Amino acid sequence: MFEGCEPVEPLPPPGFAPEAVAACAEEILDRLGRAERPVMMVGVEIRRYGLEERVAELAKRLHVPVVTSFMGRGLLASGDTPLLGTYIGMAGQPEITQLVENSDCLLLFGVIPSDTNFGVSEKRIAGSVPITARDRAVSMGFHRYSNIPLEAMVEELLRRVAGQAPRAEGARTEYPHGLEADEARVTPPDIARAVNDLFARHGSMPMAADVGDCLFTCFDIENTELVAPGYYATMGFGVPAGLGLQAATGRRPLVLVGDGAFQMTGWELGNCRRYGWDPIVVVFNNQSWEMLRVFQPASRFNSLDDWRFADLAGPLGGEGVRVSTRRELALALDRAANTRGRFQLIEVMLEKGAVSTTLARFVEGLKRRH
Amino acid sequence: MFEGCEPVEPLPPPGFAPEAVAACAEEILDRLGRAERPVMMVGVEIRRYGLEERVAELAKRLHVPVVTSFMGRGLLASGDTPLLGTYIGMAGQPEITQLVENSDCLLLFGVIPSDTNFGVSEKRIAGSVPITARDRAVSMGFHRYSNIPLEAMVEELLRRVAGQAPRAEGARTEYPHGLEADEARVTPPDIARAVNDLFARHGSMPMAADVGDCLFTCFDIENTELVAPGYYATMGFGVPAGLGLQAATGRRPLVLVGDGAFQMTGWELGNCRRYGWDPIVVVFNNQSWEMLRVFQPASRFNSLDDWRFADLAGPLGGEGVRVSTRRELALALDRAANTRGRFQLIEVMLEKGAVSTTLARFVEGLKRRH
Amino acid sequence: MFEGCEPVEPLPPPGFAPEAVAACAEEILDRLGRAERPVMMVGVEIRRYGLEERVAELAKRLHVPVVTSFMGRGLLASGDTPLLGTYIGMAGQPEITQLVENSDCLLLFGVIPSDTNFGVSEKRIAGSVPITARDRAVSMGFHRYSNIPLEAMVEELLRRVAGQAPRAEGARTEYPHGLEADEARVTPPDIARAVNDLFARHGSMPMAADVGDCLFTCFDIENTELVAPGYYATMGFGVPAGLGLQAATGRRPLVLVGDGAFQMTGWELGNCRRYGWDPIVVVFNNQSWEMLRVFQPASRFNSLDDWRFADLAGPLGGEGVRVSTRRELALALDRAANTRGRFQLIEVMLEKGAVSTTLARFVEGLKRRH
Amino acid sequence: MFEGCEPVEPLPPPGFAPEAVAACAEEILDRLGRAERPVMMVGVEIRRYGLEERVAELAKRLHVPVVTSFMGRGLLASGDTPLLGTYIGMAGQPEITQLVENSDCLLLFGVIPSDTNFGVSEKRIAGSVPITARDRAVSMGFHRYSNIPLEAMVEELLRRVAGQAPRAEGARTEYPHGLEADEARVTPPDIARAVNDLFARHGSMPMAADVGDCLFTCFDIENTELVAPGYYATMGFGVPAGLGLQAATGRRPLVLVGDGAFQMTGWELGNCRRYGWDPIVVVFNNQSWEMLRVFQPASRFNSLDDWRFADLAGPLGGEGVRVSTRRELALALDRAANTRGRFQLIEVMLEKGAVSTTLARFVEGLKRRH
Repeated sequence: MFEGCEPVEPLPPPGFAPEAVAACAEEILDRLGRAERPVMMVGVEIRRYGLEERVAELAKRLHVPVVTSFMGRGLLASGDTPLLGTYIGMAGQPEITQLVENSDCLLLFGVIPSDTNFGVSEKRIAGSVPITARDRAVSMGFHRYSNIPLEAMVEELLRRVAGQAPRAEGARTEYPHGLEADEARVTPPDIARAVNDLFARHGSMPMAADVGDCLFTCFDIENTELVAPGYYATMGFGVPAGLGLQAATGRRPLVLVGDGAFQMTGWELGNCRRYGWDPIVVVFNNQSWEMLRVFQPASRFNSLDDWRFADLAGPLGGEGVRVSTRRELALALDRAANTRGRFQLIEVMLEKGAVSTTLARFVEGLKRRH
Repeated sequence: MFEGCEPVEPLPPPGFAPEAVAACAEEILDRLGRAERPVMMVGVEIRRYGLEERVAELAKRLHVPVVTSFMGRGLLASGDTPLLGTYIGMAGQPEITQLVENSDCLLLFGVIPSDTNFGVSEKRIAGSVPITARDRAVSMGFHRYSNIPLEAMVEELLRRVAGQAPRAEGARTEYPHGLEADEARVTPPDIARAVNDLFARHGSMPMAADVGDCLFTCFDIENTELVAPGYYATMGFGVPAGLGLQAATGRRPLVLVGDGAFQMTGWELGNCRRYGWDPIVVVFNNQSWEMLRVFQPASRFNSLDDWRFADLAGPLGGEGVRVSTRRELALALDRAANTRGRFQLIEVMLEKGAVSTTLARFVEGLKRRH
Repeated sequence: MFEGCEPVEPLPPPGFAPEAVAACAEEILDRLGRAERPVMMVGVEIRRYGLEERVAELAKRLHVPVVTSFMGRGLLASGDTPLLGTYIGMAGQPEITQLVENSDCLLLFGVIPSDTNFGVSEKRIAGSVPITARDRAVSMGFHRYSNIPLEAMVEELLRRVAGQAPRAEGARTEYPHGLEADEARVTPPDIARAVNDLFARHGSMPMAADVGDCLFTCFDIENTELVAPGYYATMGFGVPAGLGLQAATGRRPLVLVGDGAFQMTGWELGNCRRYGWDPIVVVFNNQSWEMLRVFQPASRFNSLDDWRFADLAGPLGGEGVRVSTRRELALALDRAANTRGRFQLIEVMLEKGAVSTTLARFVEGLKRRH
Repeated sequence: MFEGCEPVEPLPPPGFAPEAVAACAEEILDRLGRAERPVMMVGVEIRRYGLEERVAELAKRLHVPVVTSFMGRGLLASGDTPLLGTYIGMAGQPEITQLVENSDCLLLFGVIPSDTNFGVSEKRIAGSVPITARDRAVSMGFHRYSNIPLEAMVEELLRRVAGQAPRAEGARTEYPHGLEADEARVTPPDIARAVNDLFARHGSMPMAADVGDCLFTCFDIENTELVAPGYYATMGFGVPAGLGLQAATGRRPLVLVGDGAFQMTGWELGNCRRYGWDPIVVVFNNQSWEMLRVFQPASRFNSLDDWRFADLAGPLGGEGVRVSTRRELALALDRAANTRGRFQLIEVMLEKGAVSTTLARFVEGLKRRH
């Protein structure tokens, strides 16, 4: 019942003109040379084309500070490039936001120009004229070089600055550590702090997040190995992605997910027993579609019921605990990290309105704008 | 931010030629007059165009027995037409199957010609030449009348047989009652029997079923008020459809669903508390995608884990009980019927291979065919 | 530079159900049997499928009179079927028009239902319900038999009436002969008469006509071997088609063309010398786009100049003569018929408003209608 | 019978960024400044956007020599710009060809990059990197400025070189004059010479040419007011275009057309009398589709018959004369120029193989290439 078919011949890679790449690289270096505050922002293409190491090397020889775009969070995670952090516009760390928005020569390497990456900009970014290398073309000033493969351009630039001593620019982002394990109610910043402590003690874990404040909380977590959907896209991604992480890598993942998303796909945890997976799942339970409530507070449907996820963990084949205080959170995380073989669900009860630092800045920035 | 728009003018109904309807009705009656074993099968169009009562009346005046197509299960449910049952070919009751397949003048009123309705035929149905009225046309013999609205044709036929005394043909289907409440393991036929007893005692409940043997079991249930997807379509339909039944009608529904489908959408029961719904949900748990296993027994992925749905009911806001014996089933159903205000989940543990009478006939028929 | 390719495999002919053809033929004969004034009209499909002889035989055994549609002029030309003529509605011979429009059982065999064929109908034809066999289907009454190849239906009918004695119905059309060769100005009816005389004396010639009254004149010409475009389609067809006739068949053609069309393509006669063609070309010169002028008399652009086509014939390699009287016409035609080897152009000067009998009836019929 | 409709609102012209135009102009001038042998070639867009005068001014202030593309023949015809001529690659005057192909800074203003314009290039033109302004974009080097309206760019360049003294560069093309009116057979170069003499004596006439050597002959004619189709496109254009010239401008045109094209549309001359047109029509009659014969000498269909066009002129309402010698040609042209009111057809009998200087160079260039 199956029809055989010939193997698919991959198309040969498209060619390009080395002289065009040379002319382009020359102009980039000329503009960089005249800049006082250059900055490099990296995006998905540097991973897609396997260029992370080369780009890190280039940044050090160009002596420019490096940040990732929002969707590029996780790039340059390994290696010794002092990655300053992630640009999130009005929702991001002020130092990084200002660095990017005040640059007189912004290099965008493989960054997707989208609302997700730039919609939160405080000032016009897309409006100014960064040097943009993406989709096999390079634009700067008012003109554009076509058919410039990113790899070829990076290599040409490296060739031309080979003589420069490598130097990392800028100070690394500080991440919060040292959770105060007291009776205070847990807030999202506490969760980030607790995770940073956990990873410092037990070692890093790859992370999967769902949409909402669990995603924003990740920006205060030092480890940047993260898969997640953009702001509101693909809700329900978190738990299944975490299972996929463990299935694909064999490493134990940490999943951050809101109660709204858990209602959609959290039940997939029932598959863990059969396959031997044991993720640690932190449920941000504020009994709310909080992101929607922030923008449309009048709608009552944003308030959700109390679904008691910790109690559901056992019947599904794992272990669950409900926590409210920081002390309970610290204990639960530690115990979860020390328990293998059964998924560990930590249901964190959050008060409505308790938000991450990133989300707080986001809301603040929107108020300023309107 | 909203743009107003003009109201939409509905198109006038398309016209038709009364003489064409007359010629068509005349030929139908002529063929019926020469037939010895006429049968009428009804499908969705008789509900879509609001013709159930008129068609019932027509059947009685034409003196022809009536069955529904598979997808038409539930049509003519009310009213005094002695509906013989549903045609399911090799999977159906032999008397009905033979009635339909041996008819020398089969009238298909508003029936969709599809695999779902006719794929299970023992002998060629579509191949013979029934009188088929659907999609605004009527075919018979080797020719076709176009632009014949079903309503117009039904009225014209009624007009022409007005003089005939109304008479119901055929014996009604017998449905199984009187479950033996003993220690024997529950089988799907027992579930049907138990539901028939339940409805006899407590009154009928509208039903929602998911795909699989829970659907086939419905064919042994006397009450035909049922919403369900066809054989394998839209798995996961059952529980949400049941909630929709209660939301839309205010009546308490009975949901029949397999464990595979429950894994997908059963969790929506967590919404009941908030909205005051309290369906009775019978989970057919054989820890298997049984329908797939029947056809592809070698694939191990068809075996599912033990998800302990009854234990999940409490945390989700309802009440759950796991049953294995017929006695336990009878008790659980009765208790569930007497308990309002919280959804009642009855997790019936079935042995692999225990199937409904309809599915048994189906499998048997397929073996005969191959 | 040429790429070879595989030979094209013709698709197998589509199948059909002999029982459907049988049922269809039976109904046709049943309707014919109840008719008092049946008539058969034939169209292009009886030639396309090579059925002219069989259809002629069928008509004789069915005892029905036969006419062609307008676009079917030329069908059944050979053979002994007393073809009554061509149906042209209000523009046609009244006896034929009434025969067709008063028929109580009109059989349309392979006729294209189009304005060209039926736009001129005095009364509704398409509105009544003829038995229509075309495009592999047969319609009658209010129903339609699909997938009935014309050939199969004709054979089935022949099989069923094999016992009937063959009999031709109706009187043949009378055609005008015997031109009065006097000083009267030539009119289109005179041209038809002159051509009939010519063919009677010298033998028939295949004909090509262009659009306009030269086409309508053909309907008074007894020989029906004619290629021409429909009413206004493809002006300029005539002369090149005539050259094609001679190139394809080796027979000398007669071309009837108006001065408007000759201005477009008449010059192709310059190719005759090289290829040895010698058509007889009759130019209807009324210095007018007469057909347009009939309908839009106010527009001055319909009046054309005097282009002196006869004088152009010599330089183009042929012989030309301008005629105005019937005597001159008769002489010119005779001389042309007796001169081979060089094309013979006869430029007939017509008075504006001189029209063929068919066009006269057409105009008259339109006046009646409006 | 006519439906009224609202007037069509023209879309507003698309905007553009003045800073982009400025950056573009700056780079053009920078490149020009570093060039030693700049050349400007103009194409259709400078007429489409009404920029001929401005571009002429710009060329004089930039101090660059100007040529037209092949399809741009006729641009900058009036005015005092010393237009050097038309670039036709291997078929053109060697001085112009070398000027363009050896330029180290070629400016293409509004030129369509097509085979028609560049297929005859001796060396790569499109391969090198000219500064190309067309289709609302400007390319140079390996990059491209988008959304640069030609008008805006021309004005910006003018603004920046306003201080430069205007100066015309390069020597005008020499055109052949002074036909030897002897018994030698006429050749196409003789026709060009004779026309130059005619225009010198009687004044210029706008010209329409058809495809073939009559078109190439025009490149030796000093007056560049010409409408014609490209190499082989739209054969039959010549005579009707000439009639259109007179109808639109009221000026008497000169039409150059080959016998092959005249066979197609020359007959339209029959309309002259009615409208009072009186073009001078020179038919290049070598009884051949000469262009095709050059490339496919074996095909006999390229040899045409002797159609005696001069004899056809009279009956069509004009005057015609057949000439073979240069003396006859000179006389005929003079007489034609002095005769108004009736079209004048001069049928020049050419020997097969007699070609214009441009076609000769073309054929020679192709031989060199293959």
